[in-house]
Amino acid sequence: MGKWCVGIDLGGTYVKFGLLDENLRPGRTIELPTPGQEGPEALVQQMVAGVRQLMAANALACGDVSAVGIGSPGPIDIPQGIIIDAPNIPGMRNFPLRDSISRALGLPAVLENDANAAAYGEYLAGAGRGTRIMVMLTLGTGVGSGIIIDGQILHGSHGLGGELGHMIIVPDGEPCGCGQKGCLERYCSATYLAMLAARKARESGREGLLAAAVNQGRDIDARQVNEARKAGDPLAAEVWDMATCYLALGCVNICRIFDPDLIVLSGGLTRAGDDLMQPLRAHFNRLHWRLTKPQTHLAIASLGADAGAIGAAGVAWRASRQH
Amino acid sequence: MGKWCVGIDLGGTYVKFGLLDENLRPGRTIELPTPGQEGPEALVQQMVAGVRQLMAANALACGDVSAVGIGSPGPIDIPQGIIIDAPNIPGMRNFPLRDSISRALGLPAVLENDANAAAYGEYLAGAGRGTRIMVMLTLGTGVGSGIIIDGQILHGSHGLGGELGHMIIVPDGEPCGCGQKGCLERYCSATYLAMLAARKARESGREGLLAAAVNQGRDIDARQVNEARKAGDPLAAEVWDMATCYLALGCVNICRIFDPDLIVLSGGLTRAGDDLMQPLRAHFNRLHWRLTKPQTHLAIASLGADAGAIGAAGVAWRASRQH
Repeated sequence: MGKWCVGIDLGGTYVKFGLLDENLRPGRTIELPTPGQEGPEALVQQMVAGVRQLMAANALACGDVSAVGIGSPGPIDIPQGIIIDAPNIPGMRNFPLRDSISRALGLPAVLENDANAAAYGEYLAGAGRGTRIMVMLTLGTGVGSGIIIDGQILHGSHGLGGELGHMIIVPDGEPCGCGQKGCLERYCSATYLAMLAARKARESGREGLLAAAVNQGRDIDARQVNEARKAGDPLAAEVWDMATCYLALGCVNICRIFDPDLIVLSGGLTRAGDDLMQPLRAHFNRLHWRLTKPQTHLAIASLGADAGAIGAAGVAWRASRQH
Repeated sequence: MGKWCVGIDLGGTYVKFGLLDENLRPGRTIELPTPGQEGPEALVQQMVAGVRQLMAANALACGDVSAVGIGSPGPIDIPQGIIIDAPNIPGMRNFPLRDSISRALGLPAVLENDANAAAYGEYLAGAGRGTRIMVMLTLGTGVGSGIIIDGQILHGSHGLGGELGHMIIVPDGEPCGCGQKGCLERYCSATYLAMLAARKARESGREGLLAAAVNQGRDIDARQVNEARKAGDPLAAEVWDMATCYLALGCVNICRIFDPDLIVLSGGLTRAGDDLMQPLRAHFNRLHWRLTKPQTHLAIASLGADAGAIGAAGVAWRASRQH
């Protein structure tokens, strides 16, 4: 059996390729464009080409690779290895991606949700290395999450678990696209933070940097909210404080539920670095129960955009050890 | 190795004894008074006497029993098998109960938190039989919980996990004894439901059955709130509706987090039966996301007061299989 596992991270724009050796050391990663309009067979071919390029870039021979993991956006059927639907790629409905890749490469393959794969990457080879229980929250368009307990990804009984972005944290709160109200992600994803700021700027009638941008019809993003805050805009400061407070509340709940060693944060909002982590930690310590001191660490992910590909390799590594 | 595992459930008033055979069928249970004032050695003796009576009651010989599990209220140190403190039993601070029982009986022993043991009992031999992932909420003085994933009890990295009663569900809500605000248990435990009803009756100035009882200085409990509700008291109906709504919100969150097959409810509030389950299910269906239909069932525990002892036997069964 070869010493390396390969990981493929299927994104809307790029397919990323990474790998891990048997000591869980990552190799060089590469990426290729996602052939979005050409159907599933073109995607399989691109993936095979990417794996070959990855092996060349890392000077690996065929016998050096033992298994392949694929991280894909949902909805997917993990036990069957099927992409149920991929809105950006026509013809992908109910496509058996796992078995197609396995046949094309002549290697065992596993399929995993992309958020779980990224969490697994951080767990094995990133910020979560050495932890027993790790929870990752990805603060992007929404709030994605991955939960790792003793090396196992929590999927739930029907593949619907680990959706911490849809924990209700405000009864009868902001309506969410999922049909619930008050979901965590409606308060602290990068996208919703910016939306809340824009709405407040429009509705409050207050002046300031954010209000000026919004009133000129410009779109604002989370980075601009933070910049406005640092430039002294009180409305931006309020929204930033609110978002970090709700995120801290979510982290406290994660401690009550899982008592993890570590909560890893990733996604667009974490580009704010300490501007995010400092108020987050302050709110976390304030909201946390008094029965014990906080035992769970909060940290920013360390693998960046490579987490998904490295984690997919890790999922393959795990599966090959369990067989 | 014997075919039976024995379970001991240490309560403040009674010690209960139960057992499971290798096919996870429970035997007859018995109980003895807890020797509260006589120190740890008397407790160990009482436990040994109870195990002998249990074996006699089930016509078992010494060789028929292979292991013992003990469920105890916290705080305990599970890996070390130590009772850190037992407020009702003097001299129990840092007492090595597991090893004392193991030596006295000449059998391997394991220690577990009593709420987890009860959840494990329902999982193996009660309402949760045949499930993969099961969450139990015990609606009593507070809200206790036990989380079972693929046969493993979720303890967390520092033994602080599985405290679902202390999920914050109302930001800046009711102050909780743990130091947080808005914990689930402050809205739907049997005790707090009655407290909220009494407070509302006092403060609202409204008339009715509950208000009359409270104004006469009588204590009310959850059962009386339900009785008043059924007799047409609108204030009681409001409080009952609020408690079942928050409990449903907690159950929705449990689905988003764990996606279990089943949420089992136990404790004093479940004596209300359908008076609890009917509004709970209605709120649960209303609050649940629309991305999928609810997949998780809600049910009342089936082992009643035996769950702790049977579950402690189950914890011993599990440990003996893992060795």
